[in-house]
Parts: sequence; structure tokens; C-alpha cells
Amino acid sequence: MEKSRDDPRGLSRRQMLGAGASTVLGGLALSASGAFAQTGELPAEWDETVDVVVVGTGFAGLAAAYEAAKAGASVALLEKMRTPGGNSIISGGVIAAAGSPLQAERGIEDSPQSLYEDMLRAGLRLNQPELARTVAEKSMETVQWTIDELGVRYAGLVHMGGHSVPRSYGLEAESGSGIIVPQLQKLKELGVEPRMRMLLKRIIRDEDGRVKGVLVHRNFRHPDLESGTPMTIRASRAVVLATGGFGADPAFRALQDPRLGGDLDTTNQPGATAEALREALSIGCILVQPSWIQLGPWASPDERGFGRAPHFVQEVTASYGLWIDTLTGKRFVNENADRKTRADAILAAGNKAIAIADAAGYARATGGDTEDLASMMSAGVVREYASLEAIADAHQIPLEPLLKTIGAFNRDLDAGADRAFGRYLPADIGTVATPPFYVVRLSPKIHHTMGGCAINADAQALDIRSGAPIAGLYAAGEVAGGVHGASRLGSCAYADCLVFGRIAGRNAAAAPRWD
Amino acid sequence: MEKSRDDPRGLSRRQMLGAGASTVLGGLALSASGAFAQTGELPAEWDETVDVVVVGTGFAGLAAAYEAAKAGASVALLEKMRTPGGNSIISGGVIAAAGSPLQAERGIEDSPQSLYEDMLRAGLRLNQPELARTVAEKSMETVQWTIDELGVRYAGLVHMGGHSVPRSYGLEAESGSGIIVPQLQKLKELGVEPRMRMLLKRIIRDEDGRVKGVLVHRNFRHPDLESGTPMTIRASRAVVLATGGFGADPAFRALQDPRLGGDLDTTNQPGATAEALREALSIGCILVQPSWIQLGPWASPDERGFGRAPHFVQEVTASYGLWIDTLTGKRFVNENADRKTRADAILAAGNKAIAIADAAGYARATGGDTEDLASMMSAGVVREYASLEAIADAHQIPLEPLLKTIGAFNRDLDAGADRAFGRYLPADIGTVATPPFYVVRLSPKIHHTMGGCAINADAQALDIRSGAPIAGLYAAGEVAGGVHGASRLGSCAYADCLVFGRIAGRNAAAAPRWD
Repeated sequence: MEKSRDDPRGLSRRQMLGAGASTVLGGLALSASGAFAQTGELPAEWDETVDVVVVGTGFAGLAAAYEAAKAGASVALLEKMRTPGGNSIISGGVIAAAGSPLQAERGIEDSPQSLYEDMLRAGLRLNQPELARTVAEKSMETVQWTIDELGVRYAGLVHMGGHSVPRSYGLEAESGSGIIVPQLQKLKELGVEPRMRMLLKRIIRDEDGRVKGVLVHRNFRHPDLESGTPMTIRASRAVVLATGGFGADPAFRALQDPRLGGDLDTTNQPGATAEALREALSIGCILVQPSWIQLGPWASPDERGFGRAPHFVQEVTASYGLWIDTLTGKRFVNENADRKTRADAILAAGNKAIAIADAAGYARATGGDTEDLASMMSAGVVREYASLEAIADAHQIPLEPLLKTIGAFNRDLDAGADRAFGRYLPADIGTVATPPFYVVRLSPKIHHTMGGCAINADAQALDIRSGAPIAGLYAAGEVAGGVHGASRLGSCAYADCLVFGRIAGRNAAAAPRWD
Repeated sequence: MEKSRDDPRGLSRRQMLGAGASTVLGGLALSASGAFAQTGELPAEWDETVDVVVVGTGFAGLAAAYEAAKAGASVALLEKMRTPGGNSIISGGVIAAAGSPLQAERGIEDSPQSLYEDMLRAGLRLNQPELARTVAEKSMETVQWTIDELGVRYAGLVHMGGHSVPRSYGLEAESGSGIIVPQLQKLKELGVEPRMRMLLKRIIRDEDGRVKGVLVHRNFRHPDLESGTPMTIRASRAVVLATGGFGADPAFRALQDPRLGGDLDTTNQPGATAEALREALSIGCILVQPSWIQLGPWASPDERGFGRAPHFVQEVTASYGLWIDTLTGKRFVNENADRKTRADAILAAGNKAIAIADAAGYARATGGDTEDLASMMSAGVVREYASLEAIADAHQIPLEPLLKTIGAFNRDLDAGADRAFGRYLPADIGTVATPPFYVVRLSPKIHHTMGGCAINADAQALDIRSGAPIAGLYAAGEVAGGVHGASRLGSCAYADCLVFGRIAGRNAAAAPRWD
């Protein structure tokens, strides 16, 4: 229906109105400035010129900068925060790879097709198929690349939730730093170093539809978006947006899901805000699937960020204990359901739920690692109570319903079946009855934003008017949308960021120069 | 975090860069044209000037035009198609009203709060609370307004799915024409007539951030977006976007939900495309929740549009028959589940499902209205078969599984409980065994797009950079997003469109003039 609008170079206003319009529009003060468009004039002089500008220093940005520099492009690598790495450097350290040597060693059959299908199942088939397929097909070669070119070291294979087989490589470093640090090292060898405290203010899109550079604020002081000093950087070949998601931006989150405003914390670093995404949308990018925001249901409001609660909540309370709605004293969800089901249920219960385990359950789950427990207790994340009555008192839970709930749950455990929610029960589970009891307050935290700029499998950002690629603009990583659909599987963000970061960097370096 | 950006007038580029920037940016060819922004120059002369431009002639557009004209504004009312009314005029003819005289007559207790809660339950609490609350609180006064001011006639109260009580007024006309026709009549009395075949091409937003008019193509020939002749209309007070949803736009649908591309039909009129929404996003509107697209699960691919299948499929096959996945010969969903569950299940079954009823079930459901049935059969929508074997043969269903499925279903009916899916069974249901059998092929059709431009409760469109209202721009009806969250309840679109259409029209007429 819009067949005349698929010019990948974009259309100037003059072109859009067409020759015939000039008579009718004789009264319009036509100029070279691209009126009615998202475009603007170029600086007469740029403060700096490079081939490729990469914005963001997480996995995607560093991968893009590496591939671009390796291809011979000069690269400006910009980071708004004081340190590089974004969310990537603080993330959990596992990357999906389908059909790996580690799988072969263990006799595990796997294929890109199987990973693709797992991604689509988790994503409720909202995933853009060609994007998910690209990640799945390139996952193994990407892990191999981290080993061969970056020297990344892995500890072994992990079976992440929602994956049909164990296929995720766990980093020796146990966090994303195990990839970020080698990425930075290799970039340094290529002469590219991230420039800190450089905030993207404007993506400069010319009236011919092409992105030609950026306006940034150097010496930016997060989170003051007006701080710093403006400067322009010309991108002779392309700009790569790798600015991450908006998990730490309550205002933008609440626009897309009003439940997720300022009351909720996030596992993300504080720089995971939306101003770069807003700018990309302002100059004509397409926002896709923005209301699909992944929450971690295993988080505690008694610590900041990802914290230490998730492991305890998941391994101890969700397997050997139970979760209670403090308003009713009842269980309210299968404590081992998928992340979305559990987070939605906690929010629907007024965000006033707690996770409970008893001493026996804790010992079964952990082998009785008291040192770790003592540390979480001294941090106020895990609280110890001598009785259920003490829990009810401390958390303002109606006592009778609480006792009734735990009684019924224990009878179910004795009978070997969770009649209320059908939860899978470990073989060695026992009743929740042995003091002391341990409690973690629950409050879901924003973990990943699946939506973002529409891209194609070449990592080109697409234009809202034409649907065609925006010349000179690439996007990769969490700022791009559509790869994961409704829900991202654990360890697939690493693959997504590295796969599309590399594609974006290679394509940006090969984009035609403009003059 | 963006405290300096909440100027509701918008910010010119010069303002955005700040005074301090001019030295650093001395090289930039600054002009009055708003470089780097979505804004553009104004025509030196406009072809026409009015107070308020209203784009779209469904419920929302006509309500906006009416309120604006009634307030004394001059109004240009634009419609791109050859006839007015949009989707509204072909819609089902029911409007929600909480706390009505008809409810009081029948002793039904209801309140805006109850309607609000029903909307949020259906919307999975993704609804923007203040928008849903506005619709709920104004629903009854809006229906009363249609009676008192428009002379609309209602036949009685209807209990729509998902509403906790019967609260929807059914139009005597049994379609939206029962409101659209009186709206057009009243507008004519105020001197406002819709101008057909006027396509919105550009929303003209000035560098001061204010929307000041539109560029349209008159004599537009749908769907050729380049057809027609350009003309500019100055909106001295405001522009109201009431351009509807994108249910008939496969390309835009597929961007947000790749399952919903060109293979699927829609219940919408052919003009329900996204070009006006794309334009609104291009000049700085915010897209919210676009991947929430409502499908009708009760539709047939053997007729265009809403058609006649839905009534038969819902009343006959979903209550007295069963649905079969033709690939497996098995039931695959509770045939009376909510729309989303059923549509998702049909798509997950490869979009190859059929609905079956037998002669006895048909008679129970309808009282045996053979005239209606004969007509649907001659249209090819309902197909008649002498045996289950004939159905299997005609629809390429594996026979043994089909017979086994129907045998098991009939045993469940005898036992009085649907053991497979827990479907509610009518008291007079009998086994599915009496030939002839009736079959409708199923294929979900796109029915309503919940996402769209972000608005506030004053129907002001919000700006992607600042989050603040865009001066001079209002949006109402399906083009706006956030009212219904994840899923719109039946009869709530009427209330939404009329409530926000009236708000938009009143506020547009009261907006300050610009010079």
C-alpha cells in the first residue's frame, strides 16, 4: 500500500511532496532544511570526524566498535557513564550457544533450530523471526569468537530456565566482566578506547534521510541531561546505537506499563534510561513491542539492584518453601512458575508478598551454608523468626489464614502433590515446620526491556514513515526490539548483543561514505 | 531526570542547545527551521484557515467536531475514504454505561468503579489508570448525551463478555450507524459536513513545538497514498487526530506482532491503516503498547470482514459443538475462553482449525432458524456434511483421532463435565452425534488495536522527547493508546471514542489561538 515509500535513502521533503506539489505549495517557504521531517541541517563545521560513531559500551557497543575498527574504520566509542560496560558488565555471566563442543562432550543434541524454537516459545511468537533466527544461528560461532579472538574463558555448561537442553556457557568470571574486560583490551590494541561521560543529545539526520553524525555533551554528569558541553561528531560512514534498554527509567517504563513506575526498583545499572531511545524515535526510528518488560520475581526491596536475594529466593524458598500474600495469609502463585507469571502475581497481590523457608528446607537446598546466610541476614535481606506467629506479627499477616495455609501446604507435601498450584516438588522436600524460619520480602525488579527500535537482520534501524532502513544508522543490543518477543530467555541477551553488535559494526564500517 | 524538558510548549533547537552552546556550535548553520527536531517551517500562505481541524469521521472524530463546533469554533472535518463513519459505522452497536436507568429498572447494581475494575482486569492492568477511569466515569453521561442531544435510540441492556454485570446499551439500529447517522445530522445542523477523500499527509509542527496545521491530499484515492492534490489547512487553535486503528494495515501490524501479517483478514474497514499514526509518530508523538492487538477468534476465512460466521461460531459451535485442530484431529482450546486465548490457540494450531456442530446442537442453540443457516451455507461460510468421515475427508483431518476426540467429548457431555478444558456446558447440551454436521473454518481476524499515541486525560497528545503535551494536538479513539491496556472489553470502544472525542473537541476549541 505504500509502494512509493520504500526508498532506502529516505526522502527529502521536496521529494515527498513531489514535483506537482510545488505549484500548489508555492506559498510554502521551502528551504533546504527539511521542513515537516525529522531531519535537520548539518553543522557547517564538525568538531570531529570519524568513520563510525558507536554509542554505548556494553556487549553490543564494544562488539560493534571492535568489528568496525578491525575492518579499518576510525571509531569514536562513546559512553555516558563514568565507567564502561553498561548492564553487561554486571550481568550474570552466561551465554547461549546451540550445538557446542561442550554439548557434544556430554552427548547433548542441540541445534540452532532448537534454540530458535525455545526463543519463540518464551517470546509467545512475538519475536521477529529473522532476528531470533539470526541470533540462534550465530550463537555458537559467537561464543567461539569470544574464545578465539577475545580469549574469554568459560567454566562449563549451564541449563537455564526455558531452554530445552543445557546450552549456556557459564563464564569463569561469573559475570559479564569476563567478556567486557577482554573486549576493552582488544579494542585498546586496535587503538580504540571508550570515551566516558559523553551523552548522546541528538542524532543528526540530514534532509536526504541519512544519519550523518551526532551532537553529544562531553563531561556529562549523570543524571543531569543538560550537563556537559556540546560537541558534534561527523560519522562519515554510520552511527551505531548500542545504548541499552530503559529498565532504569521509571517515566518511560510507566508510559508502556503503568504498573512499572517509580515504586519498583531495577536490577539494571542507573544509566539504563531512555533518552537515547527517545532521540532515536524523534528522528524517525520505529518503536516496537515496548510494553513487554521483563521483571525478576525473585528480588528483594531490602537491597538495591539485583542483589543477593534472587539466589536465596529461587533455590531455597521457591523449591523448599512457599510464598505468602501478606494481605491474605495465603499462597498466591506457583513459586516456580515462569518469571512473568510470578512477577504479575506479586504485583496483583499489592506488591506485599514474602518468601518463607524453614531451617530444614534451607539445609536441604544449600547443604547448610551458614556463612552466606549470616551475611544476608546481617544485610537485612533475609530475616530470621523463631515462629510463624513472629512472622505474622512482623509482616502484619492475618495469623489464622497463615497457619491454615502452611498447614494445608504441609499436608500437600506429605501427600506428595501441590494441590493448590501444581508446583514441581523436589524428592527431598519436607514440611515447613522447623524453626528458625527465614523470610525475604519480595518486590519484582525491572530486569530487561524487550521492546526498542525496529531493526532488520543487518542491524539497520528502520524508518517510521517508509519502513525502510535509515541510511547511516544501526542499532544493536537492548535498544533494539523484536529479537525476544514477549520474554527473553536467560543467556540469550549475551548472544543477541554480541551477534547484532558485530553485524552492526561490520556493516557500519562498510557503509558508503558521504561527502 | 529530565526536569528541564517539561516545557509544554516544546523547545526550539536554539532553546535546547542553550545559550552556552552557541560558541561551541558556531560552526552550525543555525536557522529558524528547527534542525534536529521533528518540526518544520510553516507555509507563508495557507490554502485554508479554520480554528480546529478534525481528522477522521468515526465516533471520536464526529464527537470532537460536534463539541468544537458547538463551542463556536470553525471546523474542518476530514475523511480519507469515500464515505464517513470509519470502523464505527460498521461496528456492533453496543456501548457500555455504568450505573444506568436501564440497570436500575432491572435492579442491577453498578458503578463507574466497577466498570473501571472490569476494564483493568481485561486489560491486565496495562491500562493507563486515568484514561480508563475517565471512560468509566463518563460512560453513563455519554450515553445520556447520545439520547438527549443526538436522539439516539436504544433497544435495551446487553451483558457483554468480561463485564461483571449487564451494562451495555444496545442500539436499535444494531450497528454503529445508529450513532454515526445522528452525529452527522447534528453536525450538519451546525454547518459542519465531512469532506471526503482528504488524506492527512503531514502534521505541521512548528519549531516552537506547536502543531499549527496539516498538509492533506484532496481527491485521495484509497489506497494510493500518493494520489490526490496537496493543500494546507491552518489550524488556528488545534488539530484533533481521530484516525482510528491500524487493524487493516498488515505491514504495521507485523512490525508489532509478526504473526499478524498479510495472511490474516480483519473485521475492520479497509481504511484502518497506519499512515496517520506513522505521521503522528514522525512529528513526535509517543507510541504506547502497540503489540496488543485484539483478534476475533470466531471469524471465517470464507468471507470478508466481520461477516456472518461469528454469531454461528459463538452461539452454536462454542456452546453446543466443539473446535478441532485439523492437523491433529483434537480439540485444542476451551471453545468459550476469552478472545485472546482462543485466537492465540488457533494461530498456534497453524491457523487450520474448524468449528463443528451437529443438527441437534444447532436446533438447541437457535431454535432451528433454517433460513439463516441456508443463507450462510449458500454463501459457503457454513458447510454441511452427512458424517464425521465426510468432515475428515473434506478438511484433511486424520480420521481416527477425530473420532476418538468426538467420542471422548460426548462421554464428557454425558458425564456433565468437560474434563479436557473445563468449558462451561449449557444445561440442554447433548452429544455431538446427529447428522447433518455443520462446519465453519476458523481464522482469527484483527479486530481492534489497543496501542497508539500516548494521550493524557485531556486528550492531549504527548511528546516523545519531553513527555509533556504537544501544544495544538489532540488524539481520541482508536488512534490513541493506553485506555484498554492488553485487551479491550466489548462495548468499551464506543465509550472510549465518544468520551475522548468530546474532550478533544472541547479542548481544541478552547486552545489559545496562535498568530
